[in-house]
Amino acid sequence: MSISAQAGTLLDALRARRPLVHCMTNYVTINDCANAALAIGASPIMADDPGEAAEITAHAAALVLNIGKLDPRTLEGMVLAGKEANRLGLPVVFDPVGAGVSTLRGQAVRRIVREVRLSIVRCNRSEAAWLCGMHGSDSGVDADGAVSPDDGARLARQTARKLGCVTALTGETDFLSDGDRLIRCENGHPMLSRVTGMGCAATVLCAAFAAAADGDCLTAALAGVGAMGVAGEIAYREAGVRGTGSFHIAVIDALSRLDGAAFAAALRAQEVHA
Amino acid sequence: MSISAQAGTLLDALRARRPLVHCMTNYVTINDCANAALAIGASPIMADDPGEAAEITAHAAALVLNIGKLDPRTLEGMVLAGKEANRLGLPVVFDPVGAGVSTLRGQAVRRIVREVRLSIVRCNRSEAAWLCGMHGSDSGVDADGAVSPDDGARLARQTARKLGCVTALTGETDFLSDGDRLIRCENGHPMLSRVTGMGCAATVLCAAFAAAADGDCLTAALAGVGAMGVAGEIAYREAGVRGTGSFHIAVIDALSRLDGAAFAAALRAQEVHA
Amino acid sequence: MSISAQAGTLLDALRARRPLVHCMTNYVTINDCANAALAIGASPIMADDPGEAAEITAHAAALVLNIGKLDPRTLEGMVLAGKEANRLGLPVVFDPVGAGVSTLRGQAVRRIVREVRLSIVRCNRSEAAWLCGMHGSDSGVDADGAVSPDDGARLARQTARKLGCVTALTGETDFLSDGDRLIRCENGHPMLSRVTGMGCAATVLCAAFAAAADGDCLTAALAGVGAMGVAGEIAYREAGVRGTGSFHIAVIDALSRLDGAAFAAALRAQEVHA
Repeated sequence: MSISAQAGTLLDALRARRPLVHCMTNYVTINDCANAALAIGASPIMADDPGEAAEITAHAAALVLNIGKLDPRTLEGMVLAGKEANRLGLPVVFDPVGAGVSTLRGQAVRRIVREVRLSIVRCNRSEAAWLCGMHGSDSGVDADGAVSPDDGARLARQTARKLGCVTALTGETDFLSDGDRLIRCENGHPMLSRVTGMGCAATVLCAAFAAAADGDCLTAALAGVGAMGVAGEIAYREAGVRGTGSFHIAVIDALSRLDGAAFAAALRAQEVHA
Repeated sequence: MSISAQAGTLLDALRARRPLVHCMTNYVTINDCANAALAIGASPIMADDPGEAAEITAHAAALVLNIGKLDPRTLEGMVLAGKEANRLGLPVVFDPVGAGVSTLRGQAVRRIVREVRLSIVRCNRSEAAWLCGMHGSDSGVDADGAVSPDDGARLARQTARKLGCVTALTGETDFLSDGDRLIRCENGHPMLSRVTGMGCAATVLCAAFAAAADGDCLTAALAGVGAMGVAGEIAYREAGVRGTGSFHIAVIDALSRLDGAAFAAALRAQEVHA
Repeated sequence: MSISAQAGTLLDALRARRPLVHCMTNYVTINDCANAALAIGASPIMADDPGEAAEITAHAAALVLNIGKLDPRTLEGMVLAGKEANRLGLPVVFDPVGAGVSTLRGQAVRRIVREVRLSIVRCNRSEAAWLCGMHGSDSGVDADGAVSPDDGARLARQTARKLGCVTALTGETDFLSDGDRLIRCENGHPMLSRVTGMGCAATVLCAAFAAAADGDCLTAALAGVGAMGVAGEIAYREAGVRGTGSFHIAVIDALSRLDGAAFAAALRAQEVHA
């Protein structure tokens, strides 16, 4: 079975299971994160207080940690929830939003990477570069410049090896790697970068798929970023789309209508053999 | 006048009065809560810091307490605002999101119920069961399994008696009770449960109606959950609706267009005589 | 070149530059603020923790301070970020949401005005009146009653003089003043006041324009509130708009499609010579 077919099958499994996904995510895009999770067939639960975070995680099938709008209280909750997820063997998906943009974010990322065993990290090029100890650009959290295919492939694999988890490096081309295998995914539309939160929502989709993937986090990561890319393509073709506002809504619509067969057929993913 | 006609009349009164509704609600759905309030004809004000909560309540005609994303600071603000609302005789509408899902939420609910006199509680079946001291399910805050008509009726009345306030129990069928009288409402659409925040928004609608109801909280609760149900039905029939994203927008559209006569005609509510 | 033409030219410059705008804004409308910034061609970054606020500002080309949902931690971050913006000579745009509605907000406004040098204040009539030491109304943060042209002009100029910065007073007619010059802008649509966050988003637009205006804050303020007004007019004429939900989306659509020439042609702004 091709990797695209596997992602399609995983979508059907996700919709059948309706897993509970605990999302600790930023307040800018939290509504989109919840609606993207519902649209793809998961059941989201949002809670970030240190006083309940781990207890909520214990009910869930996957955990999302997104540091997009950071504060010390929430970071504490994230570490507690991450450890609980590790104890229970649940997948943990990390979105290191703006890693390197501030000292506080740098410290937060280092602490999470040190104290929590991650399953998938979903990030853009600047964040991945920072994670690998290179110098990140500071052109803003949504900025995601063109990456040459070679650079992207190398960066994804390197980040995966450094962090010991699957890396989903998104950009014009998405690269997925577990440190060994490498997948390229060509789906998506430039307008996705003109709507806030589509990256955060892709992270939540990765977690929703991971919750149904029985440990195959590379396929889950491909399905997560691929679903966002495919939804962006479908949304852009919608008759009623007249700008970034209606495109945003059409992305959620497309996610909510997607089924496994259509998803597999629309995915333009291939394994790269180095 | 039938209860549906009363709800329609109340909508016209609400639009004429444009009451200020103080919403202390969670950050996941706070934008929808504000837009639902505006759409139905109220003027929302959001503020949750303990340093100003009670003072803001004093300007308002109704108060919403929603614990969907709980933290100790906001809880403190809620109790202060709730007491001020009680002192001023304003209706207080409570949404015990995820009651029973964590110890912290359990404590928060107990504290609010103990320290604040509630007018309406709007909840789903798991939350109502927890409120009544039964064992709640833990299938997530949006989960709202099918309830047999008998169970729902019993649970709504029991919750109302236990808390000494009107209960709006939402699900496939909605049940409203003041502990004595019982109303069934059959409006709604399954897609409402695939969009986050429609329950929270229904809670805010209950408060908006309560602000114009001169003490008739049972009619206000029916109007609040009924307006959401009717808007869901109208939204689903809209030509442009292509998934959960556009459905979500169409719900707000429908609320903003609703008038008293159309609302009364669309409501499928009846009093149940036990 | 007319002021409308200048605003159009500024829009083209903004889109070419794609400035990073640091938004410290309330959680009710933060998603709209980010999407409005992206739609008009800026790159938004949201961060409010005192531990990173100033460091984030140092990456940005403009700063937004919005006290819509106030808490002491965020206020601290705002003052730190504001001082950093002053040190670096970046424009600071202030939205004193609900100034005068509570003691806490009054203190917050006084502290920001005292400790941060502001470039533009974007506010409604009640807030401007409070800022000038007059008695504000308390009909809610979205309320913005009709202002007689004379009152509005006087209030805008007086606020600008009192605060020593450009004032963008929005309402049925918008008034822009630097204390000396005065501009009237007649764009907009009443439905804008039935969607939450359109005022907050206009504030962010002012900052985006200020980031590209090389110190001409009066033109930036006109462009910011004018873009929202023009977008509201375009949105209302869209075929698919059926209520406040789809209008809201159509406003973002219109912002994302606007170019300099169309903007200049649609602006109904004129300088008032007293």
